[in-house]
Order: sequence, then C-alpha cells, then structure tokens
Amino acid sequence: MGIVITAFERSPDGGKGLARDTRVRWALEETGKPYDVRLVSFEAMKAPPHIALQPFGQIPTYEEDGLVLFETGSIVLYLAERHAGLFPTDTDARARAISWMFAAVNTIEPPILDLVTVRIIEGDRPWAAERLPLVADRIRNRFKQLSARLGDSEWLDGDFSAGDLMMASVLLRARPSGILDEFPALAAYVARAEARPAYQRAFAAQLAINAPASSAG
Amino acid sequence: MGIVITAFERSPDGGKGLARDTRVRWALEETGKPYDVRLVSFEAMKAPPHIALQPFGQIPTYEEDGLVLFETGSIVLYLAERHAGLFPTDTDARARAISWMFAAVNTIEPPILDLVTVRIIEGDRPWAAERLPLVADRIRNRFKQLSARLGDSEWLDGDFSAGDLMMASVLLRARPSGILDEFPALAAYVARAEARPAYQRAFAAQLAINAPASSAG
Repeated sequence: MGIVITAFERSPDGGKGLARDTRVRWALEETGKPYDVRLVSFEAMKAPPHIALQPFGQIPTYEEDGLVLFETGSIVLYLAERHAGLFPTDTDARARAISWMFAAVNTIEPPILDLVTVRIIEGDRPWAAERLPLVADRIRNRFKQLSARLGDSEWLDGDFSAGDLMMASVLLRARPSGILDEFPALAAYVARAEARPAYQRAFAAQLAINAPASSAG
Repeated sequence: MGIVITAFERSPDGGKGLARDTRVRWALEETGKPYDVRLVSFEAMKAPPHIALQPFGQIPTYEEDGLVLFETGSIVLYLAERHAGLFPTDTDARARAISWMFAAVNTIEPPILDLVTVRIIEGDRPWAAERLPLVADRIRNRFKQLSARLGDSEWLDGDFSAGDLMMASVLLRARPSGILDEFPALAAYVARAEARPAYQRAFAAQLAINAPASSAG
C-alpha cells in the first residue's frame, strides 16, 4: 500500500486551498511522492473509524504501511526527513527550519485562526464587530515581526524548506482578510511560494475536488 | 560553550512553572544535559539583541555552539533527536510522538491561551464575562477528545516521550481555570508527568528564580 491522506469531501473554503490537506499535498509534490486521497464527509470525520486515525476529528491524516500520523506539521516533518527537497542537508540549518515550522503553527497561526472565531463561530454575538479590530491588530503585530526578520530575503533561512512551506501555508489564511497585503514583503514571500510548481500541482489537485462547478454537481 | 537558554527575569506566573522555559528545562533534565540560563527582562526581550535570537520577542531560546533555536516544540524535538530519554527507538513510534508534539501546540494550546485573551488582554472589555464560557467550552471539547484517546493508558503512545512532555506542559496551563480537573484522566496524566524527577528538577529551577520571596528581594 502506498501513501493515503484524507481530505474534506467538500472543503469549507470551496477550493481556495486553505484546508490543511493542501499543505500535505504540497509537501508530497515537493518530494515527488505519489499519493492517494480518501475524502471524508463532516459526519464521517466525527465517527469512530476516523477518530481512530485522528483523535480530534480533523483532516488530514497520513497513512503509509501501517503508520498513521496526524497534524500537518508532523506529516510535513516526516516527509522532509525522509525525502530530499524540504530540509537542508546541514544539521544546524535543518534544526532552524524546524523552529520555523513550529513558529508557523504555534505563533503565527493562532491569531489568524482567531479571525474564524470572531467572524464565524462568534459572528452573531454582539461583540463581534468591536472585537474584530483587536484580533486584526494581534495578527499585524506578528506580521510586523515576521516581516522584519524576513527582510528582503527570498526565504526565511537560506533555501526554501519545510519551514517556508508551513509558514506560507499559514500566511495564506490571512489573505482573504486583506491583512496579508498590508505587508508587501510577506505578500511577495507567499506569492513566491505559490509560484512553485509543486504548490501549483497541490492547489490544482484540491481544486479539482472542491471547485464550485463540481460541488454543484 | 555549553547549552544556554533564556527565561523571564521575572515570570508573569510568579513561579507556577507555566512559562515556556520550564518545558525546555524539563527536556534538558530528562536527557541529563547540563545548561545555563540567561535571564531577560521584558524590555530586553523586545530589544534587538534578543530579537536577533527570537524574532517574536519571546522566551525561551536555545543556544549551543553557534546554533540558535526558538519555539519550545523545536527545541524539545532537537534534544529528543540527539539524546536518549525523549523519543522511542522505533521510527514509526517516534513519528507518532512528533504528531503529539504538534497536537499539543497547534490543537490543544490555542484554545487554552484564549483564556489569557478573554481574562487579561480583553479582561476590561464589556464582552469578557459573556465570552468566557464560550472559550471554556472550546477547551472542554478538545479535552473530551484527548481524554477519550488517552483512555486508561499511562502515556499517549507507549512509553513517556517528548509528545507527553509537550502535552502535559500545555495541559498544565488549564489547571488554574479549574477545567483540567473536570477531566480526571487528564488531571491524573498531568500528575504523573509532574511526578517525574526530571520535571521536579525543572520546576524547582524556575521556582528558585521566580518564587515570591526572591522577587520581593
């Protein structure tokens, strides 16, 4: 059996590539590994067979020869360790790339996901409108720090790595809010990431499942 | 030069061990590596010399022979890969331990940190009291899923690993709210982690800096 990942049967973003399976597809494309996708419905994600693979009822999961992994950071790291293309060969540079992977999911992503809380989960609450600018400013604070570190470099630390893959994927989620484009260096960094052929293939693969045309069928 | 980490000159928690340097101290103690600590003030954390080490102005950082790392997950993983005591030898089990490390910081920690947002950062806002139970319920939802997966096992996947170190450290942050103790299996899991001699040494080391007696001096 080869590699099998799970993805939304129908992504809430309608194919914008913001669902987390895109990160794993991208890593697989960078490393040139073929894979199959098993689509899961929202109901199936909460049922015992999927919970056995992913204790929090999320996608994606990663299965290969009896191994089951979850959390995109962990899956991308697993691929990066085993196949060329996502980690530098220098051991110190590799450790620093892992620092950026954790910074993406633990320092940059949480304030961005708070946009979902204030707009959707708590979107009908009386405080939503007043809270939105506070949430946006917390994102801006992190983006300012990240942009200062990036400077005019192409990637965060030397060549493109799994750290950039995770960081660009997380930053993408802030684009619909307009906040990403307030930071031209970060917007250009994300655009460089999106221009990579491996990203394009990953994006096209998820779009083929989630495009409005197919979801209307 | 040996290992040097940074920690708060004075931790906001007054020595409860919730600051993130405790996680790194704990990992160092589990692996038996000696280390030095450089304390940084809140002002110094935002100044260029520290930002050069940690782009987001946080603690801890990790320095060893010219290598600089940040993000506790990354530092703990680095130590776990190089020294016995934090990762299983089986490669699949090691990959699964890394899934738990990412789950700790990306799935379990964000809703817990939202308690700081609602109580402190937005504590004076008119919506704080009404928002608190929503935040608490999001934590309970994750704790229910995590407790279901843990079942009556001692640790999350086989022997104690860096995955447990990160997860127990994150869960600890929910104890002051009372929510951890609503889940007896998780509270017992954290108690087992705290009972480890390496955790006790790490806790004592941070307490020696942050205890009320010394901070009054």
